[in-house]
Amino acid sequence: MITILMHHNAYARMARDLAARMDRVRVVTMDREGLFHLQPGGEPVETPAPDVVYGSLDAWFQPKARAFIEGAMAAPRLRWFQSSSAGLDMPIFQQFGAKAEIFTSCHVQSEAMAEWALWQGLDFFRGGPRHRAQQARREWGRFDTREICNSNWLIIGFGSIGAAVGGRVRALGGRVTGVRRSGGTAPEADAIHAEVRPQDLASADVVLVCLPHSPQTAGMADAAFFAGMAEGALFLNLGRGTLVNEADLIAGLDRGKPAFAALDVTLIEPLPADSPLWSHPKVAITPHDSAHTPGTYRRTDALLLANLDRYLAGEPLANVQPKSRFA
Amino acid sequence: MITILMHHNAYARMARDLAARMDRVRVVTMDREGLFHLQPGGEPVETPAPDVVYGSLDAWFQPKARAFIEGAMAAPRLRWFQSSSAGLDMPIFQQFGAKAEIFTSCHVQSEAMAEWALWQGLDFFRGGPRHRAQQARREWGRFDTREICNSNWLIIGFGSIGAAVGGRVRALGGRVTGVRRSGGTAPEADAIHAEVRPQDLASADVVLVCLPHSPQTAGMADAAFFAGMAEGALFLNLGRGTLVNEADLIAGLDRGKPAFAALDVTLIEPLPADSPLWSHPKVAITPHDSAHTPGTYRRTDALLLANLDRYLAGEPLANVQPKSRFA
Repeated sequence: MITILMHHNAYARMARDLAARMDRVRVVTMDREGLFHLQPGGEPVETPAPDVVYGSLDAWFQPKARAFIEGAMAAPRLRWFQSSSAGLDMPIFQQFGAKAEIFTSCHVQSEAMAEWALWQGLDFFRGGPRHRAQQARREWGRFDTREICNSNWLIIGFGSIGAAVGGRVRALGGRVTGVRRSGGTAPEADAIHAEVRPQDLASADVVLVCLPHSPQTAGMADAAFFAGMAEGALFLNLGRGTLVNEADLIAGLDRGKPAFAALDVTLIEPLPADSPLWSHPKVAITPHDSAHTPGTYRRTDALLLANLDRYLAGEPLANVQPKSRFA
Repeated sequence: MITILMHHNAYARMARDLAARMDRVRVVTMDREGLFHLQPGGEPVETPAPDVVYGSLDAWFQPKARAFIEGAMAAPRLRWFQSSSAGLDMPIFQQFGAKAEIFTSCHVQSEAMAEWALWQGLDFFRGGPRHRAQQARREWGRFDTREICNSNWLIIGFGSIGAAVGGRVRALGGRVTGVRRSGGTAPEADAIHAEVRPQDLASADVVLVCLPHSPQTAGMADAAFFAGMAEGALFLNLGRGTLVNEADLIAGLDRGKPAFAALDVTLIEPLPADSPLWSHPKVAITPHDSAHTPGTYRRTDALLLANLDRYLAGEPLANVQPKSRFA
């Protein structure tokens, strides 16, 4: 019998699936008030003492996130932590990665994030801001817009997010150049290179960065990078705010390169109220919620259940991250 | 030797292609001032007297559209009119269809229009208005949004536009039900029905109408139609403004069905400045420009050239419309 700790919302979605495993799994949930309960039934539990923690998105983005983390970190022996994220660099993931015997990541957020990239690409190509400004003025003014079809996308960082975007762009008739250190080929890209080539940067209609944070990637989108982009191109960030030098981005936007930027991540999150990004007419900000869809919850739950069955059967789990990745 | 009349912009795009056919084709262009010229060279021409008219989008959406129409309609014998549109109901198309010996339509606008539908679908699913309102308030507020993946689309009118939308939605993981009188099956839809079934209307996350105008389709989207939609669903119109009872649409939006409407066409175009649609918080208006992309120009030009070669070879043209469709 193992004890798994999860947020009440995750339990509510998976109650039937978990009921079928109740002979081997004890489920402890945390409710909206930060209190712990044994499920099913809801008997109060003082100390969750989990063997396994399911860190679904519900657990983090709510007022009692700290209670969940403390309950999880107080486990005498944490055997396995299932993350809902691909990233390992956030402090809580580093903390759980150091404590848990097994840390498994999750790459399904890329599906929802890829639709964010299409959304931002289409809103830019279709003249979303100009159409909305015209509507606000009650002005019927036709103008030419652009298509994803035949557009060039440079995707820097070609892991699960980059591939999810690339596959969709190609399905819509766009051309995709991916960048990843290992090079090679991928069905979701027309070409893959091991580094950002100036000619690819200069011919891209859309440049998407979706690299993880590291000392090597920090500040990679700087003045020289933006100056190397094409006229009229869009810059997207689905990776980490640290990838972008925000002062250089604003200076670039004011010179027209990039023509527009859509950012789901910023250097400081939440983005401070006095940041000039908020009100820049060529910037769209979303609050790091590109992955927050019911589809993401459903896909993440499915991974947890599949990994749970592997765990119970003594089989190797999917997406195990080596201990060396946690400081 | 035949004389073809086209707008100067169309000639500029196709000058090289047309040069290769100059032994059999005399090209007359109309410039921005509404004056006619023989090409290449630009020698002024008093009366274009065309055998063939290329009605590209450039010809209509410019201040001298009337001069183009008059020059074209003054032809002693108009052998062939190549339209840039799929629709036949606009007055100028009826006029050219009645005059020309052969009228050929064009269905390539559907490609650009399909991306409009994805754009509007994503902006709705992704909470575009709410995200933009938050940004205007400098507020970092995560919220859950939706995906095209696993969404249900009901596409009423499954001709070239419907199929172009359906194929893209399916490529992104959505489910497509198409409606067309002839029924049957289509690779761009999961199911096709001969009429709008209440259960399909009630389970669609997005309802797109892209029917032509006719006495049968006029006002089909009325109070009963909107009442039959699902909570939280989006209504899109890429067909004709006459399909929609606009008073019923506004009443429906105020009751929450549909949850939002995006319209590229309106009953009266340009939409009058006093229309309540302009300022309705649940309405996005684009000025009938969903097809206006460089891709559309390029694809329409390619059809003109292919049909021109067929014409010169005495072969049947593509997309010939029967005389009976013009009053």
